[in-house]
Parts: sequence; C-alpha cells; structure tokens
Amino acid sequence: MDRLVYFDNSATTYPKPDCVKKAVLNSMEKFGANPGRSGYSMAVESAQEIYGTRLEAASFFNANREENVIFCANCTLALNFVIKGLAKKGSHFVISNLEHNAVIRPLETLKNRGVCDYSIAEAAADDNVTVSNFLKQVKDNTVAIICTGASNVFGEMLPLEKLGKAAHEKGVLFAVDAAQIAGVESIDVKKMNIDFLCVAAHKGLYAPMGIGMLIINCENELETLVQGGTGTQSAVFLQPDGMPERFESGTLSLPMISGLRAGMKFVKSYGVDNIRAKENRIVKSIYSALSQMKNVKLYTNPFSQEESFAPIISFNIGNYHSEEAGELLSRRNIALRAGYHCAYSAHLAYKTQDTGTLRISPSVFTTKNDVNLLLNSIFQIAKN
Amino acid sequence: MDRLVYFDNSATTYPKPDCVKKAVLNSMEKFGANPGRSGYSMAVESAQEIYGTRLEAASFFNANREENVIFCANCTLALNFVIKGLAKKGSHFVISNLEHNAVIRPLETLKNRGVCDYSIAEAAADDNVTVSNFLKQVKDNTVAIICTGASNVFGEMLPLEKLGKAAHEKGVLFAVDAAQIAGVESIDVKKMNIDFLCVAAHKGLYAPMGIGMLIINCENELETLVQGGTGTQSAVFLQPDGMPERFESGTLSLPMISGLRAGMKFVKSYGVDNIRAKENRIVKSIYSALSQMKNVKLYTNPFSQEESFAPIISFNIGNYHSEEAGELLSRRNIALRAGYHCAYSAHLAYKTQDTGTLRISPSVFTTKNDVNLLLNSIFQIAKN
Repeated sequence: MDRLVYFDNSATTYPKPDCVKKAVLNSMEKFGANPGRSGYSMAVESAQEIYGTRLEAASFFNANREENVIFCANCTLALNFVIKGLAKKGSHFVISNLEHNAVIRPLETLKNRGVCDYSIAEAAADDNVTVSNFLKQVKDNTVAIICTGASNVFGEMLPLEKLGKAAHEKGVLFAVDAAQIAGVESIDVKKMNIDFLCVAAHKGLYAPMGIGMLIINCENELETLVQGGTGTQSAVFLQPDGMPERFESGTLSLPMISGLRAGMKFVKSYGVDNIRAKENRIVKSIYSALSQMKNVKLYTNPFSQEESFAPIISFNIGNYHSEEAGELLSRRNIALRAGYHCAYSAHLAYKTQDTGTLRISPSVFTTKNDVNLLLNSIFQIAKN
Repeated sequence: MDRLVYFDNSATTYPKPDCVKKAVLNSMEKFGANPGRSGYSMAVESAQEIYGTRLEAASFFNANREENVIFCANCTLALNFVIKGLAKKGSHFVISNLEHNAVIRPLETLKNRGVCDYSIAEAAADDNVTVSNFLKQVKDNTVAIICTGASNVFGEMLPLEKLGKAAHEKGVLFAVDAAQIAGVESIDVKKMNIDFLCVAAHKGLYAPMGIGMLIINCENELETLVQGGTGTQSAVFLQPDGMPERFESGTLSLPMISGLRAGMKFVKSYGVDNIRAKENRIVKSIYSALSQMKNVKLYTNPFSQEESFAPIISFNIGNYHSEEAGELLSRRNIALRAGYHCAYSAHLAYKTQDTGTLRISPSVFTTKNDVNLLLNSIFQIAKN
C-alpha cells in the first residue's frame, strides 16, 4: 500500500521526531520509578526528569515559576481544571465564537447544572473590534475571558496580547486554549497577560498523545477538580495547597513527560519562527493552487492576513459533504480531517454548518511531494 | 554504580516487559493518528488498536461491554470520576479504614464543600465482621460502598465478593479501587458484584505510567467530571451520552493504551494465578527471614492468612523512622518506599502513624538474588 500523505497535524502531529520516540523509550528504561514517592536513586532521577521538563516548559512560554507548570493528560483536562476551578455559583465567563468543544462543553454543562453562565463574543477581522466585542460581554460577575489562540478549523487567530491587556484592565482573568498554537506561534504568558495557558503537547510540541499542560501565571488559587495521593503531606486528608501537587494527583505519565521534554527541545532547536515560516510557505502554496481549482471552496486567505491565521486551511469540494470528500481523499491515501472538528461553533461563524469542512494542516515534516500528492488528489476529485 | 535492587513494585512495576516497551514504540510509529476523528487508514487502525484494548480489558475483568471500559490518565482519575459522578447534595458513602488518599481526598473535599459525607468501616480479620462493619455504616442516603481491593501499605485484602453481595442486597452501589490487586488477584466484576472498577495499569498490569481505567458494570449513569471534544456529535454543546466517549474527552494516550494492551497480554500469558503464586513465594521467603532478624518489626503474616493478603510486606527497623531506614537502604541500592504511602488512614489502623513503614513489593521479575541483596542490606542495618 502506498505511503499515507499526512495533513492532519492539527489533530496530532505525525510522524513524531526520532528524538521524541527515543526519549519515551529511554524514560521507560531509565526513569522507571514513581517519582516524588521515594528517595532511592531512580526515584530521584525520575523526579529530576519531571522537574527538568517543568523548567523547559516555563522557559518555553516565559512563565515565572516552574512549579506552576502542571502536567495532565491533555489540553481538555487543563481547560476543565481552569473552568471548574474558577466557576462559582453565579459566575460568568466570556468566550469567543470560535471555541472548541473543550471550552464549550464544560461551560454548557455548568450552565445546565445551574452553576454559572457564559457569553459569546464574535471574533472580527479587525483586532480592535474583536477586543471591543469581548469587553461588551464582560459583566460584574465575569471572572474570566477564555479563548482559543486560533480556530482549529479555520486558523483564525485571536489577538491574545490585546485581549489579555483588556481583560486585566477590566479586572477579569485571561485563559487561553493554546492547543493549536503552542509550538507554531510564539507565546509569552507575561507579555500576553495570560493567567492560565492550556497546552496540548502532542500537536505543535511534537510530544506523543497523552500529555498536556496547564501553566498558571497568576496568584489566583483555583479550586481543584481532582484530588488524590500526591506523595506529599500524606497525613492531610484534604488536597495539599503546594504547587504543582495541588493539581497533580496520582501517578504522572513519565514516558510522555520525557517525550514532551524532547519535543520542546526539538521545537526550540528548529525555532518556532522557522516552523511558522515553513508552515506558512506550505499553506500559501496550497492556497494558491486550490484557489485556482474549479469546484474548490476556500474560507480564509493566508496571503492577505498572514499574522492573523495559523497554518490551517479549511475547504470544501463541489457539492460534496466534507465527510464524503474526506472519504474519497482517504481512498487516495490522503489523511486529513473532515466534518466539524469538535468545533461546531466555528462552523456557525463561517456558515459551514451544513457540510463541515475538510482541513489541511502541515507540520515541519511536510514535504513538497506531500503537497503535490495532496493537490493532485484534490484536483482529481474536484474536476468531476 | 551497582544495579538497583527494585522492591517498589506497588508504586509502579519495574522493569516493564520488553513486549510493553515495543508496543509503545510501535504505537507511536503505526498508530500515530488521532483516533475517532477521521476516516483515513491510520485513524481507523488507531481506533481499532484502542477498541482491541477495550476488548482485552473487558475480557480480563469479565465485564460485559467493552464500550464501558474507559481509559483515563490514572486510577486516581477513575476514582474521581466515580465519586464525583455519584455524589449529589446530601449523598453519603461508606469506605474502609485502609483507603488510599485517592479515595479519601475526593470525599473529604466534597465533605468540606458541603456536598456529601462519608463513614469509615473497619476492616477486620474475620470477613463476616468486615461486612457487618460496612453494613452498620450504610444509611438511607448511602449511594455506594467504595473500598480498596487491598491496602497498598499492609497488603490486607477486603472481602470484595462478600462486600459486593451485601452492598447490592442493601441497594447501594459497589466501587473498588483495584490499584494494588489488578494483575495479582483474579477480579471478576460480575461474580464480585462490582459496579465500578478503578484500575491502575502501570502496576500489576505492567503498562507504562500514565494510563488507568474505569470499568463500569452497571446501568447507573454517572455525571461527568470532565467534558470536551469526543469526535462525536460535535454539534451538541452538552457532553454526548454514548459510551465510552461520555467519559473520554480530548485526545487519548494511544501509546500508553498500546502499552496496556501488551501488558494485559503479558499478564494473561503468564497467568494471574501464577504471578500471585510466585509473588507469594517471594513474600513468604522474605517474611521468614525478616521474622528471624533482631530489630525488625513486621505487621502482617502472609503465612497465616495467604488468601487475605496481597504480596506486600510493611516493616520497620529498630528505632529508625521508616524514612531514615529507607535512606540507609537506598544507599545500598535497595529501592523501596518508606513513609505513609499516601494512605495515612491505614497507618492509623495499624498504629504506625509515628514512623510510617518500609514497604516491600515484588513483581514477576524479582529474582532470588534480589531477595538475598534485600535481606542482606536489611540485616546490616538492623544489626546495629
């Protein structure tokens, strides 16, 4: 069977760099003790491996304190930690109209349970309008603005720095779902006034699936969503307050943490700006070609607003439902995602709720040959 | 440096079998797509790998429905899913006096937040007394009995089958923390009337750290603790009801799930009963030797009650605090855990709250040479 031509990197990057796979294997062999629970050599080395990854992550996102880097299973769990940690009876949140279900479903559940409410602000082409749209939704009981760094469907980016500044001026907290931008876009939690950064490690940071991070860059003490053994203060029956153990109950995934450490090093050595530039070139060349194809419908233009779009292209072919076209492409060994991408809200914004979209997302490993095979397959389907 | 003599398998088993490490590596290379989100070949193969692991787990614990096998980061999260999923305002739970903080802290937090309450039943030497102790604590508002399969400190086992039967006769649900017994003790959720089985995969199932399971064996629909994208019903803003996605939000750790699948196969081919028999022999030989050493204090006797104790030995040396003795042992490259083992409650039961204990736990990889090195080191410290 022919090689899979992989353009589903927004779902998870593939392949993973060799250094990441080696780090995972090495971790299972060398850091095999449950860290923080014992004092023997391998337990200490395991704890050091985790601490080293915290340092790397704090440096990567310019966070002050490595102990405020919290490891969890995925970005969704990090977002749940923030939302449920802030939500009190009567609280209110403001989110964008491009959010993933990882933000909407926790909030809708809390609303449904009568705990709190949320309002939706529209992302606009003009950043100042976007900020103004958010501020209009802020009420006296608003505790936080929560928004995605970039739409996982259309790539449209939110003006994080301006939103963070505006949120703080209004006295509300600022939380960011960085699933689609970590590793592709420079993120500086201090400069951007981000209080809570939620990170998927298996996408732009090239870690394996099964690890995410919550980075806390403020003094606000979230309530805990999960409690359990932390290896600390065992005699205390309530969750300890110390960081990061307050949010890290039970055994951490050391192999995945080691993979994340290697992934961040890989991205750092390549350079986030270089990755972004490379993926921009790829996305632009794809866009140019698709925009000249009959029967291909595009939604965003990466040429006109380079700084406002993450390297993601959504499109449709003729009258096909996106999932039908995705199936035709998959028969040609083209791997990309069709449908709603767990973000129906964004489809409402772009009026693609009837068909969903096909999504193209490259990685640093995408080759010219991949692009040619992709374009050729789309052309073959679109010409009919 | 000399080889580490590892007796901390109750914290996490080490080493992992080669087949497990290979499965993790293979998974990163072959099952690199985010499953359940797309229809191309690798996404389908990734989904099949997960489905195969669900089947394996359902068969392993004799659960009816593979879709009720829920993967999560660790056993602690599984326990939180159950406790928070059942807890309503005014609910009441009954737990044993040997519980890990993974059970106590979620309950104590809910109590502290005014949500619900719990009572503690004492585990007794006589199983019928234990069952009677639990039943005495059941009230009209009790929703579930939650207990550990075996104390992670002293190995003392709870009579699960009798407790499950009694719970159901009283009309309350039965949840089990199987962290210490899965893979070492045969668990049959049907025979034992277990409604919710919480499993740590990285201990007796030889998976890497970073994966656990909740197996639901009843019709009760838990409330969800975490919500987010599931790859299904994207247009619905509340969490979908379907299983298992209701409890699996965000990207699953496919490499760790593959590791778990290989780990369960490894345990199955070795045979749970054979593993138990081997570890019993090891524990008995260690117990015999330690019971003849001056200055060594033991707490349980695996000879007298073989069926009532998991293969774990807790002990202390002379007047040392367990952590001091643990440090002396670690200088001799003996890896075991000292202190409270995240289960202070069990230390109160055994009156070891002043010193904690040293804990010895073998695995299938423990050798006679390991045992000799361990005993010799303990002897050298104890004789002084």
